[in-house]
Amino acid sequence: MSWVDGQPANGLPVHDRGFAYGDGLFETIKVVNGRPELLDRHLNRLGLGCQRFAIPFDVDALRSQIMAFSAVLETGVAKLILTRGDGLRGYGPPLACRPRTVLTGAPLPAYAPERSTVGVRLYPCKTRLAEQPALAGLKHLNRLEQVLARAEWHDPAFAEGLMRDTSGRIVEAVFSNLFIVETGVLLTPSLERCGVAGVMREEILDRARQAGMPLQVCDLSLERLLGADEVFVCNSLYGIWPVRQLEARVWPVGPLTRKLQRLVDDLSSNT
Amino acid sequence: MSWVDGQPANGLPVHDRGFAYGDGLFETIKVVNGRPELLDRHLNRLGLGCQRFAIPFDVDALRSQIMAFSAVLETGVAKLILTRGDGLRGYGPPLACRPRTVLTGAPLPAYAPERSTVGVRLYPCKTRLAEQPALAGLKHLNRLEQVLARAEWHDPAFAEGLMRDTSGRIVEAVFSNLFIVETGVLLTPSLERCGVAGVMREEILDRARQAGMPLQVCDLSLERLLGADEVFVCNSLYGIWPVRQLEARVWPVGPLTRKLQRLVDDLSSNT
Repeated sequence: MSWVDGQPANGLPVHDRGFAYGDGLFETIKVVNGRPELLDRHLNRLGLGCQRFAIPFDVDALRSQIMAFSAVLETGVAKLILTRGDGLRGYGPPLACRPRTVLTGAPLPAYAPERSTVGVRLYPCKTRLAEQPALAGLKHLNRLEQVLARAEWHDPAFAEGLMRDTSGRIVEAVFSNLFIVETGVLLTPSLERCGVAGVMREEILDRARQAGMPLQVCDLSLERLLGADEVFVCNSLYGIWPVRQLEARVWPVGPLTRKLQRLVDDLSSNT
Repeated sequence: MSWVDGQPANGLPVHDRGFAYGDGLFETIKVVNGRPELLDRHLNRLGLGCQRFAIPFDVDALRSQIMAFSAVLETGVAKLILTRGDGLRGYGPPLACRPRTVLTGAPLPAYAPERSTVGVRLYPCKTRLAEQPALAGLKHLNRLEQVLARAEWHDPAFAEGLMRDTSGRIVEAVFSNLFIVETGVLLTPSLERCGVAGVMREEILDRARQAGMPLQVCDLSLERLLGADEVFVCNSLYGIWPVRQLEARVWPVGPLTRKLQRLVDDLSSNT
């Protein structure tokens, strides 16, 4: 199932700047019973990206389109790609652009339930994230680093891969954000230089704040990750997976991880 | 005029990974009287990119396609986009992928002849190039840095923009490579960390070597650029433009720049 600019369609023009340059953004939205989860957070991030790229952003039209698509999809993943639209030759964005939206639907991924209960093992990716503050935090269409990182392993024993920046700091996982717990404090890497500011990461930070948990967004070294009491990864599709192993280090599933899993598990009913 | 997988077509599937992730490469080829210039260099760079990304590369099929497209285009710019082909959800490249080619034609850009004779003024871009050795040198589809940089100026007094990396080194111009001349030595920035290894840059390096000019590929600071005797930019469409101004610094068109212009001006007849 796919829509282009709000109409059922399977193709897009070869002159789209999303195709030529990755000149656009995307959101991967979990849809349950026709309801897109965390929609305000998705639209908010998309709006920030459009602002940074000077792409016109009509939040009401987008919301209507996603709602209509979700109603037809019922349950699954709705992926929204928003590009600057068509362009001629050259990097320079046209002064008057007409953004294009592409919505595609897919079934919810069938992850083994053990990933949530027992936890996952992380693959230590060799591909590093370049430090580019101009793009940091955004879910833009320039994703070759993630493609290269995800291609590093095929062994299904690894559910996710840990990504560091070119200076060695811990940033995120390939398709997830990462948190650690250190003597009762919840920490997650700063995304000022690279990384995607995931909507589930935002949701967790807000819920932790509301629950009065001490938390900190800061630079994190690999040593600090390995010394943490608890580690988990998160995204908007699966919620939270405890991390049980990275290289030789093994963690039990910790109490704060369990508590946060409970807080975000009821997303469908409470938001 | 556009072809998809060798056939006239204006559209491509929404599931193409070039569109989803920028998972592919491109070449911008000057075609004169049905002849694609510097074709071996273009195919060579494309092959290196495919090797780095583990995308199957059929050089003979590509060459035939470009030759056939060029014969129809006659004179103009042939842009070739090569992607990993269709994908399902997720960054992981499919184990068996079927690459897609998209060829689009456009007229040759109508640059003012003064750009070649009198030279050009460079805009000092604020957008920096992130240091990512895994992608450096390739002409891949993740081009948001160039889009942001080219959007920084609208004044036609600036023909090109100077780009530095996040550490401040000189790397290239937005759609060109850059050379300087320092007491008779030709220098161009190393592209180990970022930047595109342009085919005209390679051509110039080879011709300079053959002509016995001393040359060096190395890291270059802004100070060194400003102190240079001659500066020029180059790409496969316009050849060589002398740089006559960057901020307050003004250069005359130097003798080595003129000599190299003569060496590459006869590309159409000699290669």
